[in-house]
Amino acid sequence: LVSVLSSAIIVYRLPWTWKCSKFLMKFIHAGLNTIAMILAIVSMVAVFENRNAMNIPNMYSLHSWIGLAAVIFYSLQLFLGFAVFLLPFAPVPLRAALMPIHVYSGLTIFATVIATALMGITEKLVFSLQNPSYSASPPEATFVNCLGLLLVIFGALILWMASRPHWKRPPEKNAKVQRPIGGTPEGTEAESTITDGSNADKSDLRISSEAARKQNLKLDEAGQRSTM
Amino acid sequence: LVSVLSSAIIVYRLPWTWKCSKFLMKFIHAGLNTIAMILAIVSMVAVFENRNAMNIPNMYSLHSWIGLAAVIFYSLQLFLGFAVFLLPFAPVPLRAALMPIHVYSGLTIFATVIATALMGITEKLVFSLQNPSYSASPPEATFVNCLGLLLVIFGALILWMASRPHWKRPPEKNAKVQRPIGGTPEGTEAESTITDGSNADKSDLRISSEAARKQNLKLDEAGQRSTM
Repeated sequence: LVSVLSSAIIVYRLPWTWKCSKFLMKFIHAGLNTIAMILAIVSMVAVFENRNAMNIPNMYSLHSWIGLAAVIFYSLQLFLGFAVFLLPFAPVPLRAALMPIHVYSGLTIFATVIATALMGITEKLVFSLQNPSYSASPPEATFVNCLGLLLVIFGALILWMASRPHWKRPPEKNAKVQRPIGGTPEGTEAESTITDGSNADKSDLRISSEAARKQNLKLDEAGQRSTM
Repeated sequence: LVSVLSSAIIVYRLPWTWKCSKFLMKFIHAGLNTIAMILAIVSMVAVFENRNAMNIPNMYSLHSWIGLAAVIFYSLQLFLGFAVFLLPFAPVPLRAALMPIHVYSGLTIFATVIATALMGITEKLVFSLQNPSYSASPPEATFVNCLGLLLVIFGALILWMASRPHWKRPPEKNAKVQRPIGGTPEGTEAESTITDGSNADKSDLRISSEAARKQNLKLDEAGQRSTM
């Protein structure tokens, strides 16, 4: 689940996707998130069925509360993402206004999922290790602690990749291809996703995206060189 | 601890600090972080002493591992912050290159501290609630779960405030005051903290910070109006 989520987050940062059309890349992003959602639902159903079969109460722990909240917000995020960014009906200003919120809530949900996993690991270790207990540090405890630590490092790396402005996908080629067909709005939307400046007025947006475009053009060339 | 950490993070986003000199604001940021570090050390010493007195083993749980890692990285962050950004010896390119890393690691450490707190709450609830147990959902469990949920909401709000580009401190007045004394380098550093574009080349940096400055000037006026 976490790895599919991570792939969905960093798909816009991978040089091989820079050669895909914008729609295909959005489709990969949406598809990976849908797979992650299905995995989350399957695992939740499995947990509930297992607990009901073993007569363990459901939804009492902080792990379950925060996990459920994350899944609810994630399904909301997925639904809004489909409706606003994938389907062609939403107007460009709405997309530009919602993009920073979409990015922020995506990353926050990802961090919350990792925190939930860490709480789940803690619970599992406390409940399962009885003889020797968790506090006696048997090898299983050390091993699973290491896994938890790796999960934190992995999450931190994904957030690093997702928050680097110069790792963003260059819009250049795409804008050139799409402008004759879709007109200017498509280009404006691409710009807004780069600058994240939803409240900046249009002229500022244009100046800073001009700079971003120059920079991205260079990165694009570098990307092509490294992948060819 | 979390509240002092949060104050230290958002101090650059509070309109009242926009009237302080840049040095005073850095000093508030460093001071609050130092207080948070002292609180963290005091609480860690208290935990170790208490556990030694009660003959409970130390450092066996994932909570303690991740918590200790967070404190180690936090002390490193604090030391580097003092050495590079507060003391006047570091050259401007080094400051500009380290600023995005400083911002990223500060926010990541903050998120990790919240995750550690959530794991600690989970452990405490599991170990302390015995009759009735945690799984029977006594009022204490529900109350502490709500506190944990509020902690997540609080952390998400702080990260939202810290990641909004248009909530950044406007550099305008400060640059005007400091340029005659400190020369251009001080101004360049102010720009680098705004754009976060460490790998952008100088011309790009100047163009996008021009846009940010225009935008921030408007926000500054708005801020002065709202605080006067």
